[in-house]
Amino acid sequence: MPTPFIHDDFLLQTSTAQRLYHDYAAGQPILDYHNHLPPQDIAENRQFNDLFEIWLEGDHYKWRAMRANGVDESLVTGNADPYQKFLAFARTVPHTLRNPLYHWTHLELKRYFGIDELLDENNAPAIWEKTKAALAEPENRAAAILDRFQVKALCTTDDPTADLRWHQQIADPEKFDFSVKAYPTFRPDKALNVHQPEDFNAWLNDLEKASDTSITTLFDLRNALKNRHDFFHSIGGRLSDHGLSRCYANFGTESSAAAVFDKARAGTAATPEEQSEFASHLMLYFGQLDAEKGWTKQMHIGALRNNNRRLFREVGADIGCDSIGDLSQAEALSAYLGRLDEDDALPKVVFYNLNPSDNYVFATMAGNFQDGRTAGKIQFGSGWWFLDQKQAMEWQIDALSNCGLLSRFIGMLTDSRSFMSFPRHEYFRRTLCNLLGNDVENGLIPDNDGMLQPLVENICFGNARDFLGLELP
Amino acid sequence: MPTPFIHDDFLLQTSTAQRLYHDYAAGQPILDYHNHLPPQDIAENRQFNDLFEIWLEGDHYKWRAMRANGVDESLVTGNADPYQKFLAFARTVPHTLRNPLYHWTHLELKRYFGIDELLDENNAPAIWEKTKAALAEPENRAAAILDRFQVKALCTTDDPTADLRWHQQIADPEKFDFSVKAYPTFRPDKALNVHQPEDFNAWLNDLEKASDTSITTLFDLRNALKNRHDFFHSIGGRLSDHGLSRCYANFGTESSAAAVFDKARAGTAATPEEQSEFASHLMLYFGQLDAEKGWTKQMHIGALRNNNRRLFREVGADIGCDSIGDLSQAEALSAYLGRLDEDDALPKVVFYNLNPSDNYVFATMAGNFQDGRTAGKIQFGSGWWFLDQKQAMEWQIDALSNCGLLSRFIGMLTDSRSFMSFPRHEYFRRTLCNLLGNDVENGLIPDNDGMLQPLVENICFGNARDFLGLELP
Amino acid sequence: MPTPFIHDDFLLQTSTAQRLYHDYAAGQPILDYHNHLPPQDIAENRQFNDLFEIWLEGDHYKWRAMRANGVDESLVTGNADPYQKFLAFARTVPHTLRNPLYHWTHLELKRYFGIDELLDENNAPAIWEKTKAALAEPENRAAAILDRFQVKALCTTDDPTADLRWHQQIADPEKFDFSVKAYPTFRPDKALNVHQPEDFNAWLNDLEKASDTSITTLFDLRNALKNRHDFFHSIGGRLSDHGLSRCYANFGTESSAAAVFDKARAGTAATPEEQSEFASHLMLYFGQLDAEKGWTKQMHIGALRNNNRRLFREVGADIGCDSIGDLSQAEALSAYLGRLDEDDALPKVVFYNLNPSDNYVFATMAGNFQDGRTAGKIQFGSGWWFLDQKQAMEWQIDALSNCGLLSRFIGMLTDSRSFMSFPRHEYFRRTLCNLLGNDVENGLIPDNDGMLQPLVENICFGNARDFLGLELP
Repeated sequence: MPTPFIHDDFLLQTSTAQRLYHDYAAGQPILDYHNHLPPQDIAENRQFNDLFEIWLEGDHYKWRAMRANGVDESLVTGNADPYQKFLAFARTVPHTLRNPLYHWTHLELKRYFGIDELLDENNAPAIWEKTKAALAEPENRAAAILDRFQVKALCTTDDPTADLRWHQQIADPEKFDFSVKAYPTFRPDKALNVHQPEDFNAWLNDLEKASDTSITTLFDLRNALKNRHDFFHSIGGRLSDHGLSRCYANFGTESSAAAVFDKARAGTAATPEEQSEFASHLMLYFGQLDAEKGWTKQMHIGALRNNNRRLFREVGADIGCDSIGDLSQAEALSAYLGRLDEDDALPKVVFYNLNPSDNYVFATMAGNFQDGRTAGKIQFGSGWWFLDQKQAMEWQIDALSNCGLLSRFIGMLTDSRSFMSFPRHEYFRRTLCNLLGNDVENGLIPDNDGMLQPLVENICFGNARDFLGLELP
Repeated sequence: MPTPFIHDDFLLQTSTAQRLYHDYAAGQPILDYHNHLPPQDIAENRQFNDLFEIWLEGDHYKWRAMRANGVDESLVTGNADPYQKFLAFARTVPHTLRNPLYHWTHLELKRYFGIDELLDENNAPAIWEKTKAALAEPENRAAAILDRFQVKALCTTDDPTADLRWHQQIADPEKFDFSVKAYPTFRPDKALNVHQPEDFNAWLNDLEKASDTSITTLFDLRNALKNRHDFFHSIGGRLSDHGLSRCYANFGTESSAAAVFDKARAGTAATPEEQSEFASHLMLYFGQLDAEKGWTKQMHIGALRNNNRRLFREVGADIGCDSIGDLSQAEALSAYLGRLDEDDALPKVVFYNLNPSDNYVFATMAGNFQDGRTAGKIQFGSGWWFLDQKQAMEWQIDALSNCGLLSRFIGMLTDSRSFMSFPRHEYFRRTLCNLLGNDVENGLIPDNDGMLQPLVENICFGNARDFLGLELP
Repeated sequence: MPTPFIHDDFLLQTSTAQRLYHDYAAGQPILDYHNHLPPQDIAENRQFNDLFEIWLEGDHYKWRAMRANGVDESLVTGNADPYQKFLAFARTVPHTLRNPLYHWTHLELKRYFGIDELLDENNAPAIWEKTKAALAEPENRAAAILDRFQVKALCTTDDPTADLRWHQQIADPEKFDFSVKAYPTFRPDKALNVHQPEDFNAWLNDLEKASDTSITTLFDLRNALKNRHDFFHSIGGRLSDHGLSRCYANFGTESSAAAVFDKARAGTAATPEEQSEFASHLMLYFGQLDAEKGWTKQMHIGALRNNNRRLFREVGADIGCDSIGDLSQAEALSAYLGRLDEDDALPKVVFYNLNPSDNYVFATMAGNFQDGRTAGKIQFGSGWWFLDQKQAMEWQIDALSNCGLLSRFIGMLTDSRSFMSFPRHEYFRRTLCNLLGNDVENGLIPDNDGMLQPLVENICFGNARDFLGLELP
């Protein structure tokens, strides 16, 4: 039998890489500190009926590839039959050669179902049937998958208005008998939308209910947000997250921010300048909240979203019509972090950039605000979205290595919407070990496991465990 | 005899690469869908007197290298004797080590004249004589070269005012007895120059003659342009092209564009803002024209031209004093493509970027507007100008692979002004096969010719043939 | 005994690389044409008491790494005991794996003290003692180090107000008996600070004294600057230098610049627009001064400085809180060089960029202004600051190679504040030879020492010697 495409030493080009991966990386547990999984699926240990549900239902990476392959939208996000959609994806797979989807697809089929075949339209029907049967087994239900992949904890992404009842259920040993922890992440992006007063006020009304307060002033808003931040904390949350095309660093006075709030609360849209000033104000407040409680603030910076307005109207957001922006980032990021630092309100921070041309800007920016209190306090985060693939992971690791301390890196997260994505950690670990293996064999770092073992183990798990302060089982 | 520098496996580092190239790539014909060759030279099957005429006369890559090597302008674009200019170039060649010119120079000497020597000032006189004799042979005349390199079709770059008589002559079997097709490309850059009313009106007068219409309003201009677009179509043209420092996306009303036109037609320069609004308007119109007829729109984005104003005044444009700009591109490109998409007027598009830092911005932008009608409808084009070399070709292929579908790539074009440039396709193919060979040997893609053969063949020729819809012999 | 980490073939992955380095590069002398060493230390042949003084005292690369490793500021730039600071650095070193510090640290310990051990907290005390003893030897005093590393000449960085007496002492064989030359570099950054009138006027007062003139008008300022430029020239200076976040290219009239001067001289801060116009004016003047005397102008472009305002207030500038900016550079750089070229006042130029995403912008910009008078007249300078490491050096060499003439490159400088940094030239040379070795073994350049020997030797030393026109011993 020929070696399957996904074999034990997949991506591991040197014997050192193989040793580092198999001896040190492979056995580390997973702390998936940023993803978009639905906590309800975990709490209820969801059973998936077929590959469509677990694999295609929400994965805009696959949708983009299908569109680029000439597949009609009805088979992408439309009303077509799930099986037909799967076949359309299977037809697309051979066309994704050299795209990360080609690796992910086969790594996932292998790890979840032991499938070695290369998916295409010919074997698609058999694979559909085989996986359908496997998904009916208890080991392929949502919570069981987490167990199987040694996920000690995961952090979902949640609006401040979320009631977090599923997280509470997961935390309750009476109701959930897996040892995995699931924590919410505080993502208050909607609090900044004073330029869209209809959405903003609807969200404020939800926030009023969630916080059991009345919100008529900026002061009220801040209190309600703090109320929810406290609640997230009580559930075990220790991270926040923000999606930004660019940092807000247009700091006005509190009274000017309050005036913008009043205007939006009364239904009038803020101007771009006003929105920016208001958002800058709240971002400082969010920094303080995180700093006070020892949380870690994540910032995902640089996406250009919903480019295809027609599909946005027809289908909505997060459907694979987002791409990479090219705004200048350095000055605003410096101003935001600097202001928090001056206010002694700079929390631990992980920022992620989407444009790989900005890698060095971000990697060197982190170094300006390391304050000696926490090793690696400001983290240049793992390759995000379009950069979550072998080459761009290598770029991120190289940039971090050259401009900072790789040894303090808290490593990988899936950022995924699918329970089939946990092998991304394996993918990252193989990539990391392969890089280190090449370094060793080229004499660029010492061939010394006394240094390499902790380096590998810490990046895979130990650093995230120590840095984030999440309670683990 | 030692292996010559240009040998059978030049650039092919692995046995897989060698196999892919020799078995699949090398035999593919050429569809050179973008270049700047003079159609008259083809139609008349021009004979070149010497290497200066076929090689140095119009090649600003060589001029730049000579200037950087300290060669006086008289020997670059000045009045010096062609032979002396050739000697100055020959003296420069050894100094171009690691520059693509070093590869191109020797690949071209080998493929056209069987020369294995490394050009320098010592062997320059002998090579001048040898090539002079060879150029007198029928096989080295312009049209014969196309035949020899299996060029099935090529697309020149033409102003809407061009009469296209040479293209017509080439299409006439009575007058041209080679099987190659030559098509015009519609490049209406001069239609946007309302900020330079003298040039603009002179050009309008030419357009009036070419279209046999009178142009006094924007409506007239659009009709005249459509008239020419139709004519290009009737000659077999299926591509347009635009050279832009950045996309125009400042869409005003038709009446505001008309007002700018009237002002410029009356001899008053448009302001930068007005010019941008006018150009945005026309670019939408050009999109509609292309979409209606199923054409492919090319956009070359990001050059910063004529930097050396002194040489521009003395010698003119396109003399090697252009370089790479660093304007933000994402939002304007998104707005332009998005608007065409909303108007159901988005043609097939190939965009080329000049700043390699923008590779991911462009590669991911394409994915936003794939509409499922044509596989690979929006193409992230091949490495252009300064990026038309091994490393930057690899970057483009990698960016396209990681962010889109390499399998749908329509591949290489020469973009050249010289009949000696057709080995650029070979250069690209070797680079492509070398990348794929490395991938196979590193286990990154399956060692499966059932997938690799169509991948290679389609990128070399098949995709361009199917995508562009040009009539081939 | 196992091979030490720093061994003869460190960084040299192929036999060709080893041959090129050992046969051609290693023996070349050093011309360190840009650094920040104190001339007094050279003139007085300073003796260093310990590793802190020669290694840690002023090295903000190390400070950054320590902060990122969680080291308190007291042990970084604070009042802690030097030995404790050294221990804190030693603890940090193992955490710098893959950072250039890891290479530099061990290369320096090896070359200065013959130490093969990998520095960590365990061997730190012994290494402190061993190096303390060695530093007491005459061969490790400042001027002796220059001799030992074959430094033929070095250029320090000096304000126009500097009296240059240490340079004069070094030039006087009665007072200094080493054969090394030390020249000043004219760095007039403070002349542009009309937006900070207090600093500006204090500096003007110093300039009045240094030039023995009175400065009440822009005309006076220009004369005083020319006076100092002449004086630097008389001491042997042939280079100027400017630190710019972006080129100034906002050319007004002389009278508008004069008005800004008058305002600042009277104590009123210039607006940003006025400062830019004033700075543009002076930058043209500096270009003329350099061009008239055949000097080389260096421009260091793109840093974003003093990001951490708190540490800036507490500790000052140049403490490791600078990072990489992402402003657009192309148009302003083009305008500045173009204007000098039009005025026939364009000196030889070396520009250095800090954002690696701008490599191609800078590398191609050089080509626009090569005027055929001096080979390589406009130089895309060596990897600077965060880019002074293996990978980024390779990027710079590749960008220069692909967009210009590597053969004309004037190569490496230390840019350092420490006498322990001279092995950076070795590091660069190994990196260069390794790249060329790979090229040869991959068939990308001919295996021809008739071409490779001069290429290597010229980049290591010959080109800088011929280009800069400094008087050498």
